[in-house]
This record gives sequence, C-alpha cells and structure tokens, in this order.
Amino acid sequence: MSPPVRIALDAMGGDRGAAVVIPGAAIALERRPEIRFLIYGDEPSIRPLLAQHEALTKACELRHAEVAVRMDDKPSQALRAGRYKSSMWLAIDAVKKGEADVAVSAGNTGALMAMATFCLKTLAQVERPAIAAIWPTLRGESIVLDVGATIGADARHLVDLAVMGAALAKAIFDIERPTVGLLNIGVEEVKGLDAVKEASRILREADLPQFAYHGFVEGGDIGRGIVDVVVTEGFAGNIALKTAEGTATQIAGYLKSAMSRTLMARIGYLFAKGAFDALRRKMDPRRSNGGIFLGLQGSVIKSHGGTDALGFASAVELAYDMARHDLIDQIRSTLEKLQLEPAVDA
Amino acid sequence: MSPPVRIALDAMGGDRGAAVVIPGAAIALERRPEIRFLIYGDEPSIRPLLAQHEALTKACELRHAEVAVRMDDKPSQALRAGRYKSSMWLAIDAVKKGEADVAVSAGNTGALMAMATFCLKTLAQVERPAIAAIWPTLRGESIVLDVGATIGADARHLVDLAVMGAALAKAIFDIERPTVGLLNIGVEEVKGLDAVKEASRILREADLPQFAYHGFVEGGDIGRGIVDVVVTEGFAGNIALKTAEGTATQIAGYLKSAMSRTLMARIGYLFAKGAFDALRRKMDPRRSNGGIFLGLQGSVIKSHGGTDALGFASAVELAYDMARHDLIDQIRSTLEKLQLEPAVDA
Repeated sequence: MSPPVRIALDAMGGDRGAAVVIPGAAIALERRPEIRFLIYGDEPSIRPLLAQHEALTKACELRHAEVAVRMDDKPSQALRAGRYKSSMWLAIDAVKKGEADVAVSAGNTGALMAMATFCLKTLAQVERPAIAAIWPTLRGESIVLDVGATIGADARHLVDLAVMGAALAKAIFDIERPTVGLLNIGVEEVKGLDAVKEASRILREADLPQFAYHGFVEGGDIGRGIVDVVVTEGFAGNIALKTAEGTATQIAGYLKSAMSRTLMARIGYLFAKGAFDALRRKMDPRRSNGGIFLGLQGSVIKSHGGTDALGFASAVELAYDMARHDLIDQIRSTLEKLQLEPAVDA
Repeated sequence: MSPPVRIALDAMGGDRGAAVVIPGAAIALERRPEIRFLIYGDEPSIRPLLAQHEALTKACELRHAEVAVRMDDKPSQALRAGRYKSSMWLAIDAVKKGEADVAVSAGNTGALMAMATFCLKTLAQVERPAIAAIWPTLRGESIVLDVGATIGADARHLVDLAVMGAALAKAIFDIERPTVGLLNIGVEEVKGLDAVKEASRILREADLPQFAYHGFVEGGDIGRGIVDVVVTEGFAGNIALKTAEGTATQIAGYLKSAMSRTLMARIGYLFAKGAFDALRRKMDPRRSNGGIFLGLQGSVIKSHGGTDALGFASAVELAYDMARHDLIDQIRSTLEKLQLEPAVDA
C-alpha cells in the first residue's frame, strides 16, 4: 500500500456542512484507503455522523473548532471572526504546519481564498493566487484558470497562470509537456486585449521545456479539448465556466422533455436507458467537483458549496491526486527559470 | 400582404459567398414573400445562381460590385480596398441612402463593423457600437450583448448596452417591458468589476419605464432565461457565447456516441428518432444565426461566415423582424431620456 496521504477537512463548510463532508470523506476513503483525515469542526455534532462510518472513524482524527465560517460571510468578516479558530482556518493551518498535505473545504470561496492567502502566503514568484477548474472535454479533461480568484490580469499574471496551469496538468493528468492556450476572441482577426497579446509574445519567445505554448484559443475550443490548459483572467474564466455548466443543464432539460413528450420517445428511452445513464454520469457536475487554489505555499481545494457526498468525495480525491505530486515545487522552479528571461520584464 | 421589407445583401461574404447567400435568400423569400432584395456582388458569377431561383429573381435587383472583402482581411485593409466599391460597403450604403431597411453580410466581423461604423456612423448618444446575439434559453430566447464589437466597457457603455438590448428585445420578442441583467461573477460575494457595480447602481436608480433592471446574473443564468437581456462587455460576452456553442457541440457529440454504443441504445434511438430530431432542431445553431449590430444609424446583421443556406436564411429573417420595428428611434429616444438623468454622468 502507498504511504498515507494526509488531508485536512473543514467539516463545517458548504450548504449542509458535516452532513455532506463526513459521508463524502467516507466514500473517498473506500476508493483511496491510504488517506488519513484531520477533520475540523463542531465535535458534538460531528461525532454521531462519524459513528456511522467505522473505517473513516479509524482513519481520521477529529479536532474541535469553535467557529464555523458562514456561507454568506464576507472575506473580511470571515477573517475577523474565524482566524485561528474556525474549522476553515484550522484545516488550512494544518497544511502550513505540515500536519496535512492538502486542505479541502466546501465553504464560501471568498473567505477560503482570503484565509488561505493570509495563512499560507503566495509563492515568492507569484503576485496573486488563482483558482483552477478541471473541465471535461471531448478528448478527456483540460484545466482552465483563473475561474474567479482575481479580476483582470496583466501579461505577467497571465504568464504565471500558464506556468501554474501547466504544472497542475503535468501533476494530475500525468502529461510530460502539456499544451497551453490563451483564451481570446476572434483568433483570425486583429482583436484581443493588449495583456493577452503581450502574454502570448512572452510565452512564445520563452519556449519553455515545461509546456508547449499553442497560441490563442476561443471559447468554443475549450470543450473540444484543443489544449490541456486554457489560461484567462478570473472574470472571463468564471463566466465561461458557469456558462458551460448552465448550457449543460439547459441541454439536459431539453433532452428530458424531448424523451417524455411522445409514447415512441418514452419507449425509445427505456431501450436506451443504459446509454442515457452513461451520458448522465458523463455530464454529472459532481464528477469534476473541486476548484484548485494555485500560487500559494500549500495546497487547498474548494468543493462546490451545494454539492452532495459524492461530489465532496470527488473534491477529496482531487486533493489526493494533488498531494501525490510535488506541484508547488514544480511551479516555484518553473517560475524561477522564467524570471531569468528578460522578456518577462517587458 | 404587408408592405415590402427591403433587404440589402452582400452576396460575396462568408466562406462560400454567393453559393450560400443566393439559396439562403431564396429560402427566406419563401417564408417572407414581402421581402425585396438588393443583391450586391460579382454579377457574372451570381447570375447563374440566381437563374435557379425564379421567385428570387423577380424579387431582387442585382447590382454589380467590383470588389469582394476577403474573410481574412483586416478591418483597415478592407476599408482601404473596399470602401465605396465592395459588395459589403454597397450593401451597407444602401441602408444609409434609404434604399434598403437593413443590410445582411456573412463577411468578416471586423471588416463589417469597421465599414458599418464608417458608413452609417454611431448614434449621437452612443460612444461605441455593439453586437447582440440571440441566445436560446430554457424559457425561449434572450438577447446577450456585447458579444465582441469592443473589448472592455466603462459603466456608461454598459448602460448604453442595457438600453440598446432592451429596445431590441422589445422589437423582436414583442415584450412591453423586458428584464435586463448585468453579467457578473459570484453574485453572493463582494466581487465584480467596478464598472459593472457602477452600471448596476445607475440602472437601479434610473428605474426606466422601458425595461426592468433585474440586477446581477451569472454565466449559468443565461441559458436558464432568467432575464430577457444580458449585458456584458465584448470580451467576456464573446467568450460566453462561444463557450456555450462549444458545450452544445460537445454534448451533442457525447449523445451521438452514447446512442450508437450498444444494440439496445441503437434500438432505443430508432424509437425515439422523432424526439431526437426535434432536439437536434432545437440545438441547431443555424436557427439563431445572426449578430445584430447596435448603436449605428442603420441596421446591419452579421451572419456566421461558415453557415449554410438555411443558416443564412435565418439571418435574413432576423433582418426582416428588425426592419419591421423602429428600433433605432427607440434606442435614440431612450438614451436621450437617460442622458437627462444626473446619475449617468457620475
């Protein structure tokens, strides 16, 4: 058996808190028996939930936290009320102290990012952290970042995103030299933001061994899996991600109503039920649950707040994959190399 | 029969030029017999195509144009080589001269926008033109703008977009008081661009009779049809549009492969074929083909360059719907009213 991976959980995060986190952790443990959990939260309410999961009880240590960050807390409120004592803070702090390899929380994104940045600090080479998403494509999966950590980006930040995304792709997809594209509009025309054009020039000239710079990609190329890593700033990235999720929901709705409208369609549905079930699994947003915080001196995964136990388990498994690789060292060393290039300072 | 609607066509635009434009116009004419066309392009190559469509030949006037703007011409090149004499320019100029109510081209977007702006000029109240798209939703259709005319927007431009989008929704959806949302990220958090927040404040305070300001919407809300009009700047808007189209293509691919994988699935497909066909029609991008140029002193529709005759016919029908309404006057008068409000100048 592989050596244990130590994962710190904020058991109070998400719309349903421990009621999702505990069974989610139990599912992840079944699939990855080498995980060891540090669970932070309100002990009296978590104990009875844990009691239902014998294997998890053995594989975890439960540590009481007095404070739970609320889903509607502003980042500043969360920091004020929850620093040093909330379950969210303590899970992150376990990573900082070296007690855990990675922290997972389904708590609110703004608060989690504020606490993670405050506690772990950004890498010396990185100005601002980012959130990466794993995006299902026709060819498999791609990484898209930033999906909402910060709004706007200069060329330098876009280059940082490219390096961080490529290191992540290498780690979790096991690709030796991932391809990286910059999200832009109308590739055939003289368009696009100056920062995007400048970042493109830097990446092309740097020609790093760590990844192959592909050039510009458009919104429609993401789902086609044209590149392993799609780089954009957080506003456009978040809108792209949520628009894609919304479109998937919309089409699932069309499909459902089409398949129930006529008797023939309902009969057809019964025959093809296995295929529909497979399709539903493929389109299930829980399968790719987890925003990955990048650019910090420690690994943090954000699970969707509204997910269920199965979705939370996916976030935990993603954390497991990340912990298996020395992602942060890879990002650091690539960025150090890039900083030697004069082009970056242009 | 209704009075004729006069539509000027650039027959040389698009990947396949007149070979798509002429049969496309013929399809549109069958559905809307009151259209009269002014067709601009290379007469010797268009004549034989026209000869195959008797009704269209009677309903059109073919005017020779020496120059065809190419799909990869930069806007500046297109203006230099094609001003006053290209089929694209002449179609737009027919609107300016009052010979046509609206112009349609499948030519390249940058060139078309440059020529339309140069020839027709923007409305006095509008700083920059915009491109609006019609977006199929679970509730019907919404308008999304700007999908790529200009990158970036200050609060004032976002307010202009809201007014133009609402006027368009009123005209083509026949809604008395459309709802308008501003695209933003993480509605529940303290996030978002300053320009978006400021535009939100202005729209809320102005409380115009022409439309109901809904507040912020996220990427996932577009396909749900939460509002009639979604307002955003051109970079994020273009990425959202293309990401949605890409996601639809991706899911259609999943569906196709799921339905052919097993014998049971193939049998099911045969039973449900009618439902699948209906679904395919619903998801057909040709049905909502046409970018609407707004903010100019005349109406121009951009068809997808890669579309076929059916798709081009949709763009022509959209042009027909627009010509039936005094859209430009509505935009002008609403913007005039808004400019009286001190809030806009803040």
